[in-house]
Amino acid sequence: MTEFRYELLATDGKARLGRIHTAHGVIDTPAFMPVGTAATVKGMLPENVADTGAQILLGNTYHLMLRPGAERIARLGGLHKFMNWDKPILTDSGGYQVMSLSKLRKITEDGVTFKSHIDGRKFALSPERSMEIQHLLGSTITMAFDECTPFPATEQQAAESMRMSMRWAKRSKDAFVEREGYALYGIQQGSVFENLRRESSEKLAELDLPGHSVGGLAVGEGQQIMFDTLDFCVDMLPANKPRYLMGVGKPSDLVGAVMRGIDQFDCVLPTRSGRNAQAFTHRGTLNLKNGRHRDDDRPLDDQCNCPACTKYSRAYLHHLIKAGEILGAVLLTWHNLAYYQDLMRGMRDAIAQRRMEQFARDFYAGQEGGDIDPVPIIED
Amino acid sequence: MTEFRYELLATDGKARLGRIHTAHGVIDTPAFMPVGTAATVKGMLPENVADTGAQILLGNTYHLMLRPGAERIARLGGLHKFMNWDKPILTDSGGYQVMSLSKLRKITEDGVTFKSHIDGRKFALSPERSMEIQHLLGSTITMAFDECTPFPATEQQAAESMRMSMRWAKRSKDAFVEREGYALYGIQQGSVFENLRRESSEKLAELDLPGHSVGGLAVGEGQQIMFDTLDFCVDMLPANKPRYLMGVGKPSDLVGAVMRGIDQFDCVLPTRSGRNAQAFTHRGTLNLKNGRHRDDDRPLDDQCNCPACTKYSRAYLHHLIKAGEILGAVLLTWHNLAYYQDLMRGMRDAIAQRRMEQFARDFYAGQEGGDIDPVPIIED
Repeated sequence: MTEFRYELLATDGKARLGRIHTAHGVIDTPAFMPVGTAATVKGMLPENVADTGAQILLGNTYHLMLRPGAERIARLGGLHKFMNWDKPILTDSGGYQVMSLSKLRKITEDGVTFKSHIDGRKFALSPERSMEIQHLLGSTITMAFDECTPFPATEQQAAESMRMSMRWAKRSKDAFVEREGYALYGIQQGSVFENLRRESSEKLAELDLPGHSVGGLAVGEGQQIMFDTLDFCVDMLPANKPRYLMGVGKPSDLVGAVMRGIDQFDCVLPTRSGRNAQAFTHRGTLNLKNGRHRDDDRPLDDQCNCPACTKYSRAYLHHLIKAGEILGAVLLTWHNLAYYQDLMRGMRDAIAQRRMEQFARDFYAGQEGGDIDPVPIIED
Repeated sequence: MTEFRYELLATDGKARLGRIHTAHGVIDTPAFMPVGTAATVKGMLPENVADTGAQILLGNTYHLMLRPGAERIARLGGLHKFMNWDKPILTDSGGYQVMSLSKLRKITEDGVTFKSHIDGRKFALSPERSMEIQHLLGSTITMAFDECTPFPATEQQAAESMRMSMRWAKRSKDAFVEREGYALYGIQQGSVFENLRRESSEKLAELDLPGHSVGGLAVGEGQQIMFDTLDFCVDMLPANKPRYLMGVGKPSDLVGAVMRGIDQFDCVLPTRSGRNAQAFTHRGTLNLKNGRHRDDDRPLDDQCNCPACTKYSRAYLHHLIKAGEILGAVLLTWHNLAYYQDLMRGMRDAIAQRRMEQFARDFYAGQEGGDIDPVPIIED
């Protein structure tokens, strides 16, 4: 078996090139993790997700506990087998989705009770139950159960929320079943407050977990405040362990966050945008619903090697979207995932060659050819 | 270039093993043609359709003329290039869909005018315009423009309808642009009336077209009347040319029709059923919505080699359906197309080995393990 460990291969400014070794294989970082909410990356076969270069997927504890149920997935051999993905899987703790999706929530020190957004059935989550569910799923990387502090929050609200999350992190560690090659990540909270982010980091340091995420960002604060917060909060986390920015983001968010020391990302943006006619390209973001693509025989993105770009015209993709065809969602999702993986590969190469600043300048210049602003960050 | 021709390789009773040579490659018959209505086999990448064994697709003139438009497809290089399918394509004439889908139709000897079901715009179709559209699309096999006689029809109604279709067949031939390796098929009409089917066949014989279809069946008459009609009407068509039964059908329809001398089929059933949780298997038809599949770790069909059957459990497919995931529709569509191609391959092998009767007995016995009756035949 492989020990879970982070290997730091090179740095360029704060940007880091690395490799995470896990029981299910390696993850080259900076890495983007496509979201497979309900045991499927929407619209994609897992082998095709892997073809784009993805080495790890994210699964949502909240969705899977409601349907089909963690115990059922365990009986069927675990999430990897269930969804036919043998590379690493990271699962979130369920806390965030409870707050954003469920009904009639009640939060106490013990945990949270809520009603399913699907059928109204009552469920409970706590650090202990979240660890149990993620264990039943067989997650390679388990996330500590936390409360994602809303934005904006007063310093006092942020402090109280963060301190409960840190107590929950300790309970998560106590309940987590250690297995070689598997890991539990702690989540730093503290909103935009430097002193609170520091306090959170110190409490996490006591737990000596093998990885960390930055939580409580990408919740409506905007890119500038997110970057300003990352400027101080990432350095507070140990440099010999991976640092994961949850729920981020747009291509420009990824570039800026990598330059601030982030190693892992997840976001529904490439998949959800793909289902909504939006394509991220090397020349900016395109809306394929737009009639101006009607007669355009050019590829979607002439710098991309995905099937959508090598086998079809913009005119065809536009036609599929207008006709409401499944293949339109499939091809644009595929392209967006390929674009995101390409972007991450580009950044890894740039860090290795110590030209990350130049890469970022070229990236921002290239984005000006788009016809629309990217959609805001949204959670599945 | 390849001349368009039908090669008869073996017979077993009335069942025929053959091969159609076309400008875009060969078609082994009996053949099932997946339906790619709007320039896409719904939910499938064309290379995956080819992986199932399909050697020819059907495209719908009606849908394509409305959106994105035949002239546009021609400007973009033709339907093959537009949809990334380089094997043969058969297009229907548009007549059937005008009657079943459009609004405010008006039929005269000249042709038909109608309003688009999409946006209400006015269009016209005639033998000449149908030939022009199919030429613009670049169809390997063009269908003559006809009126599909409704069922039931009196003998007089059926006769009048058939005779107009035969006049339209002549106009279709006059308007058709001959190209090597391409073909125009004539369509036999006459409802369930033997004398009318004979008259139709005699009129078609005067046109000496390279292939024929049996039209006006699978329109609500039921399998027994369809088989009874095929018993006499197929033999009326020349044996040295392919015979195509339009819009058929369920697996049991295909077996019965092959035994009555049919070489080509098309139907939306495998694709539409796949999008509606229904799977055709070697043990009958399954409804994956059914809760009894919830914990079933068996493959959908243990005699099938498609991805849905080799990589996933019934429990997973059930989960995808319940969660409304695109991948559920994709995998069941893929399986159904693989099942249909497998069935055709099985019949071709059986004819070659002169054991078609035994194949049919085994087929009908195997179907008794299903949990539901197949859905009725429906048109896209």
